[in-house]
Amino acid sequence: MPMKIFDKVTQSLIDRAKELGIETGIDRLEDQQPQCGFGQLGSCCRMCYMGPCRIDPFGNGAAKGVCGATADTIVCRNLLREEVGGAASHVGHARHVVIAFQKMLEGKAPGYKITDRAKLLEVASGLGIKTNGKSDTDVAREVASKAMDDLSRQDGEPMNWLKLRAPKREFEMWKNQGILISNAHNEIEEAMHRTSMGNDADPINLLLACLKMGLVDGYAGLHMATDFHDILFGTPQISKIEANIGVLEKDKVNIAIHGHNPVLSEKILEWTKKLEEEAKKRGSLGINVVGVCCTGNELTMRHGVPMAAHNLQTELVLITGAVDAMVVDMQCIWPSLAMIAECFHTKFITTESFVKIPGAIHVNFEPEHADEEAKKIVMMAIDAFEERKGEEVNIPKEKSVGFAGLSVEAIIDLLKKVDSSDPLKPVIDNITNGNIYGVVGFAGCPSIKLRDTSMTEKMTKELLKNNVLVVATGCTGHILAQAGLMDSSATDKYCGEGRRAVLHAVGKAAGFDVPLPPVWNMGSCVDNSRIATLLGALADRLGVKVSQLPAAGSAPELVQEKAVSIGTWFLALGLFVHIAPSPRILGSSVATDVLTKELENITGGKAYVELDPAKAAAGIISHIALKRKALGI
Amino acid sequence: MPMKIFDKVTQSLIDRAKELGIETGIDRLEDQQPQCGFGQLGSCCRMCYMGPCRIDPFGNGAAKGVCGATADTIVCRNLLREEVGGAASHVGHARHVVIAFQKMLEGKAPGYKITDRAKLLEVASGLGIKTNGKSDTDVAREVASKAMDDLSRQDGEPMNWLKLRAPKREFEMWKNQGILISNAHNEIEEAMHRTSMGNDADPINLLLACLKMGLVDGYAGLHMATDFHDILFGTPQISKIEANIGVLEKDKVNIAIHGHNPVLSEKILEWTKKLEEEAKKRGSLGINVVGVCCTGNELTMRHGVPMAAHNLQTELVLITGAVDAMVVDMQCIWPSLAMIAECFHTKFITTESFVKIPGAIHVNFEPEHADEEAKKIVMMAIDAFEERKGEEVNIPKEKSVGFAGLSVEAIIDLLKKVDSSDPLKPVIDNITNGNIYGVVGFAGCPSIKLRDTSMTEKMTKELLKNNVLVVATGCTGHILAQAGLMDSSATDKYCGEGRRAVLHAVGKAAGFDVPLPPVWNMGSCVDNSRIATLLGALADRLGVKVSQLPAAGSAPELVQEKAVSIGTWFLALGLFVHIAPSPRILGSSVATDVLTKELENITGGKAYVELDPAKAAAGIISHIALKRKALGI
Repeated sequence: MPMKIFDKVTQSLIDRAKELGIETGIDRLEDQQPQCGFGQLGSCCRMCYMGPCRIDPFGNGAAKGVCGATADTIVCRNLLREEVGGAASHVGHARHVVIAFQKMLEGKAPGYKITDRAKLLEVASGLGIKTNGKSDTDVAREVASKAMDDLSRQDGEPMNWLKLRAPKREFEMWKNQGILISNAHNEIEEAMHRTSMGNDADPINLLLACLKMGLVDGYAGLHMATDFHDILFGTPQISKIEANIGVLEKDKVNIAIHGHNPVLSEKILEWTKKLEEEAKKRGSLGINVVGVCCTGNELTMRHGVPMAAHNLQTELVLITGAVDAMVVDMQCIWPSLAMIAECFHTKFITTESFVKIPGAIHVNFEPEHADEEAKKIVMMAIDAFEERKGEEVNIPKEKSVGFAGLSVEAIIDLLKKVDSSDPLKPVIDNITNGNIYGVVGFAGCPSIKLRDTSMTEKMTKELLKNNVLVVATGCTGHILAQAGLMDSSATDKYCGEGRRAVLHAVGKAAGFDVPLPPVWNMGSCVDNSRIATLLGALADRLGVKVSQLPAAGSAPELVQEKAVSIGTWFLALGLFVHIAPSPRILGSSVATDVLTKELENITGGKAYVELDPAKAAAGIISHIALKRKALGI
Repeated sequence: MPMKIFDKVTQSLIDRAKELGIETGIDRLEDQQPQCGFGQLGSCCRMCYMGPCRIDPFGNGAAKGVCGATADTIVCRNLLREEVGGAASHVGHARHVVIAFQKMLEGKAPGYKITDRAKLLEVASGLGIKTNGKSDTDVAREVASKAMDDLSRQDGEPMNWLKLRAPKREFEMWKNQGILISNAHNEIEEAMHRTSMGNDADPINLLLACLKMGLVDGYAGLHMATDFHDILFGTPQISKIEANIGVLEKDKVNIAIHGHNPVLSEKILEWTKKLEEEAKKRGSLGINVVGVCCTGNELTMRHGVPMAAHNLQTELVLITGAVDAMVVDMQCIWPSLAMIAECFHTKFITTESFVKIPGAIHVNFEPEHADEEAKKIVMMAIDAFEERKGEEVNIPKEKSVGFAGLSVEAIIDLLKKVDSSDPLKPVIDNITNGNIYGVVGFAGCPSIKLRDTSMTEKMTKELLKNNVLVVATGCTGHILAQAGLMDSSATDKYCGEGRRAVLHAVGKAAGFDVPLPPVWNMGSCVDNSRIATLLGALADRLGVKVSQLPAAGSAPELVQEKAVSIGTWFLALGLFVHIAPSPRILGSSVATDVLTKELENITGGKAYVELDPAKAAAGIISHIALKRKALGI
């Protein structure tokens, strides 16, 4: 593997780890070379014990698995199972939040409350729940019950959250294609069943199931999670934030929160405020909560908590020696973190019963005892700070500034300052006149395989130059914030003339003394729901399908199964989706043809794989150009 | 790969396929050599795009995946996902049957009815449903609703079917261990979530999740399916059957039914009777329905339909050229079957929307139109018979005879003839006095890797010699029936003196003119529920835990993910479970140690891997000896 050189902060901490003799993912990636080609092509099957079977695309060896499965069957089954891994994660996340919400309503989780009543009523009304004369609690109970219906109904009726959040034209399209979904859990069960040996062997049928799993992810996962997050903790509003590992503070108790579920992190944040004085008594300057990965994004969006690290930096934030506690909930938590924490005074704390890591301290976090457990965790961090006194820390100086909190509601509020009666009009006008050439959503992770190429930043800068509005979620949000692209100062530096004008104008109308930033942080990975809502609103306003918009999505540095299921949802919505590196479909000509070509005739969506950032941006711009032309703009 | 020589019938058709230039699984197994060692050890991880990662057990290359996952984490995650594949299949199967049952109750599926009222009332009473003064339909509606609760409840209460069917001592044990389950779909979702990258990394926590998934399989899958099958189609009673490919008849319309779900095959069988005259008019001597794989077992158990072929022979039954239609529903259906059918006049018909196979004719079978679709399918077979006229067929002469239909109810009915007030007493007495040395349940598939060693038959004969009562399900049932071991003639030939005496005595008391056969066919793979019920009843009667019984299970020729989930259920029940070839755990010392040793201190269960049939039987007998000693018998 050629030597990889990463951005300054990342590289300095990788170097520091080397000095300390601590192994990181970079070392392990090197040790893992060469990685299995069959696995990368998707043509390795382990569904039964007649195998493992594998199909060499060059025709050496077997052309079929022992059961007769072709490479097409094998690849499509594997792809569906990857998606199930992703969709089950998102549905599980949403379910955990709904359960916490229900416990709150039953009075069993007194640490939580309905924070955003307007969002509650918006969701209730969208679900067809009558709210007149009902208490908020009663309305909330019905909303939660409608959510749980989507995991239990057996009547075959379309899922409530699909009806609530799907754009109308796309809902009709899916209905016509027979891929509407009813019960997310049935779909997950059936997908695992149909991919087991001796069931579905038809690649087209399997790819349709992939689209359905995309809808499961989008509606019973992302949208449902976002809606309940907002009701419980508030819909994000714009705030100023800082980003990068430099947000750690030597003289404060540093608590890094990592994972995805704000049900934990909101409580931790609350208790850091309550225990600030205690922390000071113990010799610190206070408590510094920093956000890592998507739990980080949730806190950033709602409270302006600093964005300390994207997923690839989770090990490195510990390498600073300055983290007193890293508290994790679910998803994207490398098991190596526990081992690295052990090299320092850092308490590494797992909190979910189904997420345990050897070497971690486990504090079982239940909504019922949220305050008690959050307090305990913060106290552990304060204790650890005392242990740290006198130890060397290596906090990089670099940090960026920027804005976060651009929920659709926050964006609409901004736009209302330009046109209070028709807030989307300024956007539509500027899309029409080309000041906004198109809209591109960036989602997903930092790839250990691509991060050294600055794939995400380079693509984004190229798109900005071409007047594209870039919105970002998840760890791409961290990456772009670190690159300074979420700050107003980047507007003049990177945007084309047209977009620059728009951002200045809206910033001014909104009463800011600076232009809006060129890249908008829309939240965590589940908040890809917000990107879909934004695109759906634009499509509705224009009276077109999402697939007709001058828009695209990109997972420029694919890592997680979740990104595969989100990407498939975007394909089902009709979006052009750039992905790098390639999903594991290249072993199948059918999967590759369908996803990169034929799908355009079905949902309008198209997968586009390109590893070179300039070419990838050019591909997206060509697509936008075609769509603009088709719209006659 | 050394040349494999199979039993006469199997080999003759493999040779015939070679003559005809038709590829079979044997050819493809050879083409697939060598198979990936990482896959076989379980130490290959494809959960994210930092990988695929793999851990060499000899210490060459990386010791951890890129994220830091150890071989222990990787193996245990893979094992849990395999189990999800199996459990989701069984739960899906059960759910499909319950949905058909509900449609019948709603009057939407008029082709079905409640056949076994006694079983309905037994299940209802076990579920705590009051039946007095209620119509059967009302009782049935409540039963179905309790079943659906097990896929939807979010209250955390133990699953209805777990309370209904789990032995009491084991239920308490699982409760104490915190592995009781509430909602099968939640468990499936959570298992996929926790195995996705960055969640559970603790091998012990993952192995506990494996036990839970075993319970999902056993109660929301196997038991639930069996109960609804019995209510809908009748609880099996003893009948005489024939087995092996020789049951095909040249001059009849041969319809082979393959898969697992009797909701389809019962209707096909019914329509073959209705269309018998039509078939004769078209020049045949009538219609010959033969059963393949587990749908075959379902028909054999309830109607004495001939058992034509185990799973490894599914291709070969087509190679005879004598099959006019092969109709399949779900699971274990090799995609190659469609290709082979195309070489003949055979209609290969898929019927489930989620099981499509390139090259197959698809007739979407819905309970609502069961009669219409079953008729259509049978007519297709009759048409195909006409096409076949004059074509050469190669039906092997060999077929065996034997008994099937030994449901627990049928066994109890038999035993009542010996002791009407306490039917289990004769069994207990004979276990105590050693005439029955122990009880061993055989389950699972024919392995293409082991079938040439006659693993299943050799182990069985060895156990019979030692007076062990052998019960069998699934394709091991086909294998043992073909070997003549389900026939009375085998009793004197293979059993030790003690068991011989018992089988003669019970046969006589039951009014048969022959002894009972030495191996009892208890049904399909989902009917492993019946084995558990039998063992549970014996344990209850003796006042001990299942783990204390002189009993064991064996999956002597592991193929399917379903076998892994069934095996894990048996381990959770406390059984000694022989498995060959090894499950994919050898890449992890923790998984291997826990499953083969430490588990004995948790549930009493123990996995035992042995590929030599004589040694495997000896291992089981040693285990039984230990258990007998501990019981003081």
